[in-house]
Amino acid sequence: MELNKYIDHTNLKNTSTLKDIEKLCNEAIKYKFASVCVYPYYVTLASNLLKDSNVEVCTVIGFPSGMSTKETKVYEAIDAVEKGATEIDMVINIAALKNKDYEYIKEEIEEIRDAIDGKVLKVIIETCLLSEEEIIKMTEICNETFVNFIKTSTGFSEYGARVEDVELMNKYKNEVLEIKASGGIRDIKTAEDMINAGATRLGTSSGVKLMECDCDDCHCHDGDCDCGDDCNCKEGK
Amino acid sequence: MELNKYIDHTNLKNTSTLKDIEKLCNEAIKYKFASVCVYPYYVTLASNLLKDSNVEVCTVIGFPSGMSTKETKVYEAIDAVEKGATEIDMVINIAALKNKDYEYIKEEIEEIRDAIDGKVLKVIIETCLLSEEEIIKMTEICNETFVNFIKTSTGFSEYGARVEDVELMNKYKNEVLEIKASGGIRDIKTAEDMINAGATRLGTSSGVKLMECDCDDCHCHDGDCDCGDDCNCKEGK
Repeated sequence: MELNKYIDHTNLKNTSTLKDIEKLCNEAIKYKFASVCVYPYYVTLASNLLKDSNVEVCTVIGFPSGMSTKETKVYEAIDAVEKGATEIDMVINIAALKNKDYEYIKEEIEEIRDAIDGKVLKVIIETCLLSEEEIIKMTEICNETFVNFIKTSTGFSEYGARVEDVELMNKYKNEVLEIKASGGIRDIKTAEDMINAGATRLGTSSGVKLMECDCDDCHCHDGDCDCGDDCNCKEGK
Repeated sequence: MELNKYIDHTNLKNTSTLKDIEKLCNEAIKYKFASVCVYPYYVTLASNLLKDSNVEVCTVIGFPSGMSTKETKVYEAIDAVEKGATEIDMVINIAALKNKDYEYIKEEIEEIRDAIDGKVLKVIIETCLLSEEEIIKMTEICNETFVNFIKTSTGFSEYGARVEDVELMNKYKNEVLEIKASGGIRDIKTAEDMINAGATRLGTSSGVKLMECDCDDCHCHDGDCDCGDDCNCKEGK
């Protein structure tokens, strides 16, 4: 398993400087991560830094509350693509889900999908705020709207990705929908658990740690870990 | 002191339902609060419910990260005003402040100010992420851009309003700039401390609690509290 290909290398701290984002992009090039994930403000910078690489530029829309209007989210997505984003991670309107206004949610997803010119669309449902029934409903809506990914979490709410939630999404998704697990993925064990549960993309700010084991004979990033207990790729370290 | 006139009656939970927002608006009418503060998604609803009252409709822009692009924030503000918002609480681009790109911050504030057609503009600087120097710098920028309020916090970061931060802003602000304290204001004592430090508006989701003491002979909301220790308006209760 080439773990690096699963990783959206993420920095969504709102105190991050130009240097922090440059570092993020250089790391993504070095490890050949799938993408960097940055706030819209930094899309232009990331896009310039990554233009000669195969690393995608991912950004977040209506993030993290999901409570901007549909019109604003569509505008923000178009603006992000114009500035160089190639992957769009949008947060659903969670209040609309609580109001059972499924039509609004579906329309919002479809309008963003149609506005971003074939770019990759990931739909963040914030599993920690949803019931099992609501997670299933959102998986069905993601099937019906033909988005690329359903994504567990923003990383800014009560908790992040859980194996049982990824398994639930995996059970109800159709053949083409993919799953991005995000939030709280900080060690190899958790990353592998998410992949085994059905995730094909991981959002994490611990990408470098996942790739760089401090144990000389470790092959963690080949998915064949034989390092000792003190190695930093072990769970919880 | 009429405490109710200071209060932006706030519900910024992204799981809030239509009923929650109806309740918020009815409470604001009952207590004659300055405004309700809701997410952009709920501005249309709040505006309809409050159209025959003197309660203002406040909403939040680029909230809570502040990391949407300038273009998106301007669009979101215009959209909010079109939907009925009369007060706009925008979050500054905190990363730009960390990059010392003061021109960007100033331009963003001015573009939003000019786009919202004379509506009240409050600038959230998220004091908990700033140094003393940065709080002073942002107060100066708010002086120079002639916004209505400088506001301490989103309520979604490390901590909310602190007396020392309000005092600092009060020391450096010009005569016309006002201060909104927000985040963690949950009892009368804290509310009064903020007002004494210079705040003329308070953002809180505890407005009703501040107005309704469970002690029969309490005059808390007249600023003349003579209730017992068990009263819910006492600090920390």
